[in-house]
Amino acid sequence: MILHGYFRSTAAYRVRIVLNLKGLKAEQISRHLRKGEQRTPDYLELNPQGLLPTLILDDGEVLTQSLAIIEYLDTLYPAPALVPSDPLRRARVQAFVLSIACDIHPVQNLRVLQALRAGGFSEEQMNAWAADVNAQGLAACEKLLSKEHSTFCFGEEPSLADVCLIPQMGNARRFGVDVAKLFPKLTAIEQAALKLPAFANASPAAQPDAE
Amino acid sequence: MILHGYFRSTAAYRVRIVLNLKGLKAEQISRHLRKGEQRTPDYLELNPQGLLPTLILDDGEVLTQSLAIIEYLDTLYPAPALVPSDPLRRARVQAFVLSIACDIHPVQNLRVLQALRAGGFSEEQMNAWAADVNAQGLAACEKLLSKEHSTFCFGEEPSLADVCLIPQMGNARRFGVDVAKLFPKLTAIEQAALKLPAFANASPAAQPDAE
Repeated sequence: MILHGYFRSTAAYRVRIVLNLKGLKAEQISRHLRKGEQRTPDYLELNPQGLLPTLILDDGEVLTQSLAIIEYLDTLYPAPALVPSDPLRRARVQAFVLSIACDIHPVQNLRVLQALRAGGFSEEQMNAWAADVNAQGLAACEKLLSKEHSTFCFGEEPSLADVCLIPQMGNARRFGVDVAKLFPKLTAIEQAALKLPAFANASPAAQPDAE
Repeated sequence: MILHGYFRSTAAYRVRIVLNLKGLKAEQISRHLRKGEQRTPDYLELNPQGLLPTLILDDGEVLTQSLAIIEYLDTLYPAPALVPSDPLRRARVQAFVLSIACDIHPVQNLRVLQALRAGGFSEEQMNAWAADVNAQGLAACEKLLSKEHSTFCFGEEPSLADVCLIPQMGNARRFGVDVAKLFPKLTAIEQAALKLPAFANASPAAQPDAE
């Protein structure tokens, strides 16, 4: 398999974690986001959205959207399970996942920040925007876990919730959100997750294209 | 069941379509978004994100995030199926769904537009922003269907892709995107879907709280 990603892309980071959790290998091709390498004609053929990541399967089939890629991998390689089988429990995990994947990540990503800059936002306003989206979103995440008391978001093993949370925590910190102070529960989960090689080896700093 | 929604919320519209497709009934409570009724303390207890929709099950369990709610309903009421069982086909449908649910809808919703206004965007700039997010996102959707030649997005029966597409088409039109001209394939699908009572009866104009 070939994974088109970028060290700092949180969506690619999710897929890297899942590949590691499942014991799968993929050749990684780095697409430098700030240089626009996700918008070259050859890449747009693979991924019409011009977003990362894209996974090319061994038979040449092309998968896009991190959560769709992860669901595919989870179906073909079901161990370890990433989402609970109980429907209600599953709905709770998915709501947490989507609160990050829909309502935090796309609202603070490079594409939006570039549009804000074009619309007249100063660098300071742009950073404040991104920090605010992360802080508000993670505050909701912390509340969504108010009835959970486990090592990871929803139990003693990492789930898709942790796969989405850990990359977003790094992003929030990068925009200056004091996550340790504001979100003690999420921070404890992050610390537990980053002790696992599957998470640590997927982190931006551990990637060959890290700057 | 009780569905907290709003006639114009595209995320609530998705759930209304699925309830109709599955032949399920839910009492609807309208939360007026522009009046901030999604941010009252009682509602935030149910939905810490302060977003629509929320579904309250008959036993009092609370579900949030439209796609998590839909997956729950689809598990408990599997007919008609909303996603294909073949993993690769499923990944294609989910990528299409997520391209709307992650990369269009949250980037042009009221919360973002209000933040843009607070950041100094004029009404004209805000509308151009929303139109652009919709137009770019739907252009990718049209391309994601380039190999599909069916009545609905991915076949002769509506799937989760159509459940997400139809509400977004309405939103794009509301922001002035000439969808009929730009997206002939999506427009033909929309016309087919809105002939089905499950879609037509879920549309904003058909809701009791429509203004």
